[in-house]
Amino acid sequence: MQLDEIKISKAIIESYKDKLIKALDVDVAIVGAGPAGMACGYYLAKRGKRVVIFERKLSVGGGMWGGGIMFNEIVVQEKAKKIMDEFEIKTRVYEKGYYLADSIESVSTICSKTVKAGAGIFNLLSAEDVMIRKGRICGLVLNWTAVEIANLHVDPITMKAKFVVDATGHAAEVVRIAERKSGIKLKTKTGKVMGEQSMWAEIAEDTIVRNSKEVCPGLYVCGMSANAVFGGPRMGPIFGGMLLSGKKLAEDLLK
Amino acid sequence: MQLDEIKISKAIIESYKDKLIKALDVDVAIVGAGPAGMACGYYLAKRGKRVVIFERKLSVGGGMWGGGIMFNEIVVQEKAKKIMDEFEIKTRVYEKGYYLADSIESVSTICSKTVKAGAGIFNLLSAEDVMIRKGRICGLVLNWTAVEIANLHVDPITMKAKFVVDATGHAAEVVRIAERKSGIKLKTKTGKVMGEQSMWAEIAEDTIVRNSKEVCPGLYVCGMSANAVFGGPRMGPIFGGMLLSGKKLAEDLLK
Amino acid sequence: MQLDEIKISKAIIESYKDKLIKALDVDVAIVGAGPAGMACGYYLAKRGKRVVIFERKLSVGGGMWGGGIMFNEIVVQEKAKKIMDEFEIKTRVYEKGYYLADSIESVSTICSKTVKAGAGIFNLLSAEDVMIRKGRICGLVLNWTAVEIANLHVDPITMKAKFVVDATGHAAEVVRIAERKSGIKLKTKTGKVMGEQSMWAEIAEDTIVRNSKEVCPGLYVCGMSANAVFGGPRMGPIFGGMLLSGKKLAEDLLK
Amino acid sequence: MQLDEIKISKAIIESYKDKLIKALDVDVAIVGAGPAGMACGYYLAKRGKRVVIFERKLSVGGGMWGGGIMFNEIVVQEKAKKIMDEFEIKTRVYEKGYYLADSIESVSTICSKTVKAGAGIFNLLSAEDVMIRKGRICGLVLNWTAVEIANLHVDPITMKAKFVVDATGHAAEVVRIAERKSGIKLKTKTGKVMGEQSMWAEIAEDTIVRNSKEVCPGLYVCGMSANAVFGGPRMGPIFGGMLLSGKKLAEDLLK
Amino acid sequence: MQLDEIKISKAIIESYKDKLIKALDVDVAIVGAGPAGMACGYYLAKRGKRVVIFERKLSVGGGMWGGGIMFNEIVVQEKAKKIMDEFEIKTRVYEKGYYLADSIESVSTICSKTVKAGAGIFNLLSAEDVMIRKGRICGLVLNWTAVEIANLHVDPITMKAKFVVDATGHAAEVVRIAERKSGIKLKTKTGKVMGEQSMWAEIAEDTIVRNSKEVCPGLYVCGMSANAVFGGPRMGPIFGGMLLSGKKLAEDLLK
Amino acid sequence: MQLDEIKISKAIIESYKDKLIKALDVDVAIVGAGPAGMACGYYLAKRGKRVVIFERKLSVGGGMWGGGIMFNEIVVQEKAKKIMDEFEIKTRVYEKGYYLADSIESVSTICSKTVKAGAGIFNLLSAEDVMIRKGRICGLVLNWTAVEIANLHVDPITMKAKFVVDATGHAAEVVRIAERKSGIKLKTKTGKVMGEQSMWAEIAEDTIVRNSKEVCPGLYVCGMSANAVFGGPRMGPIFGGMLLSGKKLAEDLLK
Amino acid sequence: MQLDEIKISKAIIESYKDKLIKALDVDVAIVGAGPAGMACGYYLAKRGKRVVIFERKLSVGGGMWGGGIMFNEIVVQEKAKKIMDEFEIKTRVYEKGYYLADSIESVSTICSKTVKAGAGIFNLLSAEDVMIRKGRICGLVLNWTAVEIANLHVDPITMKAKFVVDATGHAAEVVRIAERKSGIKLKTKTGKVMGEQSMWAEIAEDTIVRNSKEVCPGLYVCGMSANAVFGGPRMGPIFGGMLLSGKKLAEDLLK
Amino acid sequence: MQLDEIKISKAIIESYKDKLIKALDVDVAIVGAGPAGMACGYYLAKRGKRVVIFERKLSVGGGMWGGGIMFNEIVVQEKAKKIMDEFEIKTRVYEKGYYLADSIESVSTICSKTVKAGAGIFNLLSAEDVMIRKGRICGLVLNWTAVEIANLHVDPITMKAKFVVDATGHAAEVVRIAERKSGIKLKTKTGKVMGEQSMWAEIAEDTIVRNSKEVCPGLYVCGMSANAVFGGPRMGPIFGGMLLSGKKLAEDLLK
Repeated sequence: MQLDEIKISKAIIESYKDKLIKALDVDVAIVGAGPAGMACGYYLAKRGKRVVIFERKLSVGGGMWGGGIMFNEIVVQEKAKKIMDEFEIKTRVYEKGYYLADSIESVSTICSKTVKAGAGIFNLLSAEDVMIRKGRICGLVLNWTAVEIANLHVDPITMKAKFVVDATGHAAEVVRIAERKSGIKLKTKTGKVMGEQSMWAEIAEDTIVRNSKEVCPGLYVCGMSANAVFGGPRMGPIFGGMLLSGKKLAEDLLK
Repeated sequence: MQLDEIKISKAIIESYKDKLIKALDVDVAIVGAGPAGMACGYYLAKRGKRVVIFERKLSVGGGMWGGGIMFNEIVVQEKAKKIMDEFEIKTRVYEKGYYLADSIESVSTICSKTVKAGAGIFNLLSAEDVMIRKGRICGLVLNWTAVEIANLHVDPITMKAKFVVDATGHAAEVVRIAERKSGIKLKTKTGKVMGEQSMWAEIAEDTIVRNSKEVCPGLYVCGMSANAVFGGPRMGPIFGGMLLSGKKLAEDLLK
Repeated sequence: MQLDEIKISKAIIESYKDKLIKALDVDVAIVGAGPAGMACGYYLAKRGKRVVIFERKLSVGGGMWGGGIMFNEIVVQEKAKKIMDEFEIKTRVYEKGYYLADSIESVSTICSKTVKAGAGIFNLLSAEDVMIRKGRICGLVLNWTAVEIANLHVDPITMKAKFVVDATGHAAEVVRIAERKSGIKLKTKTGKVMGEQSMWAEIAEDTIVRNSKEVCPGLYVCGMSANAVFGGPRMGPIFGGMLLSGKKLAEDLLK
Repeated sequence: MQLDEIKISKAIIESYKDKLIKALDVDVAIVGAGPAGMACGYYLAKRGKRVVIFERKLSVGGGMWGGGIMFNEIVVQEKAKKIMDEFEIKTRVYEKGYYLADSIESVSTICSKTVKAGAGIFNLLSAEDVMIRKGRICGLVLNWTAVEIANLHVDPITMKAKFVVDATGHAAEVVRIAERKSGIKLKTKTGKVMGEQSMWAEIAEDTIVRNSKEVCPGLYVCGMSANAVFGGPRMGPIFGGMLLSGKKLAEDLLK
Repeated sequence: MQLDEIKISKAIIESYKDKLIKALDVDVAIVGAGPAGMACGYYLAKRGKRVVIFERKLSVGGGMWGGGIMFNEIVVQEKAKKIMDEFEIKTRVYEKGYYLADSIESVSTICSKTVKAGAGIFNLLSAEDVMIRKGRICGLVLNWTAVEIANLHVDPITMKAKFVVDATGHAAEVVRIAERKSGIKLKTKTGKVMGEQSMWAEIAEDTIVRNSKEVCPGLYVCGMSANAVFGGPRMGPIFGGMLLSGKKLAEDLLK
Repeated sequence: MQLDEIKISKAIIESYKDKLIKALDVDVAIVGAGPAGMACGYYLAKRGKRVVIFERKLSVGGGMWGGGIMFNEIVVQEKAKKIMDEFEIKTRVYEKGYYLADSIESVSTICSKTVKAGAGIFNLLSAEDVMIRKGRICGLVLNWTAVEIANLHVDPITMKAKFVVDATGHAAEVVRIAERKSGIKLKTKTGKVMGEQSMWAEIAEDTIVRNSKEVCPGLYVCGMSANAVFGGPRMGPIFGGMLLSGKKLAEDLLK
Repeated sequence: MQLDEIKISKAIIESYKDKLIKALDVDVAIVGAGPAGMACGYYLAKRGKRVVIFERKLSVGGGMWGGGIMFNEIVVQEKAKKIMDEFEIKTRVYEKGYYLADSIESVSTICSKTVKAGAGIFNLLSAEDVMIRKGRICGLVLNWTAVEIANLHVDPITMKAKFVVDATGHAAEVVRIAERKSGIKLKTKTGKVMGEQSMWAEIAEDTIVRNSKEVCPGLYVCGMSANAVFGGPRMGPIFGGMLLSGKKLAEDLLK
Repeated sequence: MQLDEIKISKAIIESYKDKLIKALDVDVAIVGAGPAGMACGYYLAKRGKRVVIFERKLSVGGGMWGGGIMFNEIVVQEKAKKIMDEFEIKTRVYEKGYYLADSIESVSTICSKTVKAGAGIFNLLSAEDVMIRKGRICGLVLNWTAVEIANLHVDPITMKAKFVVDATGHAAEVVRIAERKSGIKLKTKTGKVMGEQSMWAEIAEDTIVRNSKEVCPGLYVCGMSANAVFGGPRMGPIFGGMLLSGKKLAEDLLK
């Protein structure tokens, strides 16, 4: 059989167009395809929700690939062991309550299962603004990351979502845009992004789950952006809290 | 239960040390965790070989994440459909003989299955030289990619392997190092790296499989570096040849 | 009437998709939207040919905007006055045989008339390779310029054309790719790109028209790349030869 | 006839000198040759006013070339359809009230018509300061953009105008200079530049027209700098408001 | 005897792992291997304390190598002559009370003696955060400097120490992290880092010793970071105060 | 006693001037203060020769600080154990014939002893050319490294030496300058710099000592530049050969 | 006669050392060798004062070389014509009260005469701090500009002066250092640097002369830094005020 | 009297236009305003020739400002003492035959006298090509240096000259352009640019004068480009040869 490049090009253009048009109007739009964002997307998609995840990088996974100081192993605590099992990621016991996993297996498996569950992941797209109507965040303004890097002056497009989730990690990019651009008062103690505190894994792992919630009408946080927004401590190369945070938010949104 | 950061740090350091020590002496060392390198590693590991894959980037997958011109869909032809099925990647028919798949699902699933099959993937490490003994490539000289980028003057370490596979894509990095540093005559028509030709998907998909073979004693190529070394044409966003190339080389090496 | 951003996004995505799909199979593909490339496209489109022009920059026009040393005036000689009149660009006599025109009026008007004539201009896309079949150039391999600048590893797509025109100026990008990648012998004295000679406006203006012709099967040049390929001298801020060159090639291709 | 390069050089130098000297004393000086600035210049020039537009880039048009996310189509709403017709730009109906146009045809045609109408466009020149006398902005301090980029220490020159228009888009460069350098209180609610809000095309399209007015004695805004200064929302790839804004300000200034 | 590269690699990996594991729990952790930090480490190690010094650069010594304006000589005053003698660094009298020494001999000798005394120096590691428990600084969060420079997203590890010393010089990096991240009130007049004052060698040499003390529970300063934190003047190429400061703090900590 | 900054400045300027004037006419000028260059300088200085070492960086030691892949341990083989002992550097046995040492202790101690032995080390100075008279290298042309980095157009100065030693490592900078600038035929098989081969520690450790010899009249090599010039293999993080190479060359020059 | 490079090197080293030592203790230290700084130095040196000028660039003259927008002509008004005559710079009348001069002749002649008058100019040295005693600025802390650019960690040296003059132009570098580092209250209306206002040549030319005076004990300003500190408007390519400002301050200091 | 900025702008624009138009047709065009180029221009202008010097930098003087290794003193030998006297530059005897001069006084005085003698110096303009007619270099193609640095696509202008002199130093820019672009055979031993040899001041000072001559019809060299083209050795911070070279070429051209 003969292969025709023009047909290949057409196939990709048309198929992507369909995916993109469909992604313009969804139930939940998640920004950031790190472990928390993907876990959140996974549990939502499994329950039949229309979910898209926008990731600015070429690849997903954020800081999970590199383990601790480039030693590509991660640690997961007791509480999150069940999620690892659900994703069928191999774990080894290091000591009671501490499980080790290969970081590359972990991140690729989570991503694989998330897409299979039905969440659409769009890489290479950045959220450069939000859409607000009557004080409620109801969508995102998107542009190619490459346009940003190349510093080209090109206009964005817009998509709408019933719920927007900021899973962009330390930067809490979407929440900061909403704060700066719309002057919305956040549901934090100060009404503003409070910033992440020094590392304290034990506390962080708990607060990150509690902080995975609504920040202002229509906008939610999970993963490290939860602690960045509500002022909890940062974690090290332990990833249980991340996964629990994504799962918890998914469950809240499903209600 | 209380989480102890120092314990987490120790767990990672010790566990990584064990993995790294083990990786210093293997059956097959593959450089480059793109689709061809991972497929090759997958089929070798499934048959019980000790395999490691060294990837210079933080994440694996190379150009597969971005589909064609950032439209994250890929095309796979009839012949490779079986491999997609084996990896349990969803495909849709575009037209007879042309299958579409989500590029993110594809790359993450291949990676996930490869690690689960037993191949060790070490990201963030670059092969800066090869080890040659009696005219045979028998190992790699490794350094952190971050050391290269930061332009630090730091010495590398060394690992040995019965077979070394260059799966670094267009650049054919390992073959070029071997050629430049040792003056070894390659098994190509000119005895040298011949360079990739203009795109011709149909031809490329065939030649890439035929060219996945030994380049000089101990050194093999698969994926785009096969065509770069033996002078075949390049492909576009069609990935069947890549996977077949990795599989074919694995089968050859198993003999 | 209410404006709906999602509708605006959809309109643009669908409309562009249609344009792009149509652009994958044309009569003539011109690379470079400088004055010569646009003039060539204008005369071809006026005669009903399916023409697309690919421009790597955000805006068209190349060096024509800046006149000479940022003094935004250009000079046109007697012979090309008629083309200026056809484009309805205002000219003033400086001295017998020398006409002055505003460089900004010139470039924007040529562009405006070219698109209106029916030539499709695709900005922000770069030709990174050509397609060759049986020794004949029969298409282009395209990628976003932004992907190149951002140094992302993303695969290109492919388009086909009965004739390919290199109007990329001094760089003669397409001809150089064809030469390097396919080893095709060019129809120049040396069989290779001969390089541009020192400035000699009078000679350049003539040779540029004569050199606007086929370089190898399927591949043509016009504008400064004609002199760069066949070894003619370069010009200064005089643009008559550019326009005549584009027109001449269009007339040749129409035969 | 023989072409003489020295004559070409002289023609350009003398002609540009005349244009530049003339540009030092005008009725209206517009900074920024985007769609709003050019539309404003077009309507003023058509009524016989002496108008110059200073553009820092090599080419005019700003973000209009790239459509939405590099898909080079733009949308125009009902209200602005008439202006598109006046500029003789082809439009297609997408849906009631939504017209599509080719972004390249649009920007080049607007520019072409604006210069033909008699507005002088000076590209490659930046306004690095304003001239203020008795609390009124009455001119600009200009330098080559290339001098800025090359970071050379070179003094600027000065020009005077009855009215100065800031059409520099999001940056509102001239207004910010006036605010920072002279401490002038702006006619906004806060007396300061209020900054652009999140995207809301519908609202933006209206407010941008209303906000196209005087900011402080002698200084006016139109286009996106109007919303940036008075705090309206931003728009996406819909350009009707831009053109209406430029036209409205021109009409006000003519009074 | 035959040398085996794999054995060399293993030796280094295992030996470093042991050193690093041991460094995760110590008496004193010093950040910055300049003259003050090393002197402090030297006197502590000589008294049997478990001490580690973390240095972000490849080499130790900071600004001491370059003397004054790259003239590699340093000056030491009377009071510090005794320390120079203890380190066995050659000094020459310039004038009563002013001793000259070769800067390269000085810095390499101090480093050599410090390591021999038992202090572990870890170069290429940066402290990117501190660990705080019950308001007391009790450890550091570490990452490779190369990861920072290469701008890779990789998680850090953690170590604990009874006392943490900031000897990072002008930047006072650790104190600033503690201030920003934890909101701890410092024991300075303003409760904040006060910043270094203009040069006044005579005063600086005294105050630097007095300021070498606790800044907040668990965190101490010596060397230039002492004056940066408590607001003393800076010094020039005179190094007596540096050494005295390190020694003084070591003596205080030993109590 | 009162400290006077002006006196400190004067002391440094005058003392450096004396050192620099003395360094303009010596027995041996070594370029590069890595382990080989310092060892060579150490053994020459101990025997009373006037030796200067020019180092382009702020600090000495080259790649020795970082051990292998930033794990700051080095290995030394049996043969070189004696030199380690002479420098009083602590070593631990890893396995018969393999000794481990702390890389920071090693490099700082070698530097300290070398300066104490009487060799002058001038950091921050680069050799940008050589002086040749009657076909013999007899001196160096020096400039500040900072001038090079800052890309300033500043003339160098000159120094003369009976023997010039290139100890610049892989780059073999001085030999390459001599080759390029003077067309001198080198005493290698090809008459040119042959380039370093792939890693082979065992062979490298021997050849590096044998290759530490004269390259052309007046110019000698030691350390990695010996293998780079004569075409031997490179080494990993094993440093015995380096030290033996420096010592061997010193002994040859003493004859 | 034979030329000996070593002698040339020695001559320069010794001669510069003498100049530099002498420059460590002077009557007036001027920072910035633009037209104002040099004019000030010229009039002081002519009256026998010990004057040094420190210039961070390789060449002197600042923005005077480039005239207006790279058109290398400058304008001088009636009042300053006498100074031009004293420096023997050719001037041409443009119109009553406006004199034109070649900018290159102007700046090189002023520099030539200033050095001949006895002022020492030290190029390539930056003032990175000031020396303050009892609330009075009494000297400068100097370092090589190349050290700054190369980002090397190298300590500065110190010089003392009865009066320090900031002639650094728009940046007012020395005054800003004094303000930031010492908290000294400046003799301006706000006690702080007030910043330069928008261009107004006429006013600027007067205020610049009046503002050339003491800013705080021991520290004076002239040239554009006078208006930057006291809040006067900036000038364009008219240089009379600069020269008058330098002269006026010199006359004040001579009292 | 009132100052009018617009008048200042006009004066500069008109005056520069006249200078530039005049510079388009001269007797001698010199590229590079270093000491040799300026000396050559000085002696030609004194004899009434129409001379222009084009300098790419903002300031003239090249490497002369920085003396040797930033110690701003230069040495001049006996033979060139007379030229120093003619320029009225102060010199001091260092030793018989060696004169010291302040580098800043030297370069500014040479420039000042050269312009006063009637040579026009155009700074900020680069020669990007030559004009060749019938095998003879007869002019230059000029562009703003800032355009080059800013990487803008802007066309150059052209000027003609009876003789063109390359005084661009080590780079020999004009000769290299002529060689590359026109394939002209140079009057050197190899017919090509031979490159500069290692430093040998004594020989260099003689050969530089002998090599100051015609390289190909219409094109001459002086200063360091003479030795770069004809293969002589380079010099250090001794400037006699430079001045003699410029003078010698001027005398030859006057014949």
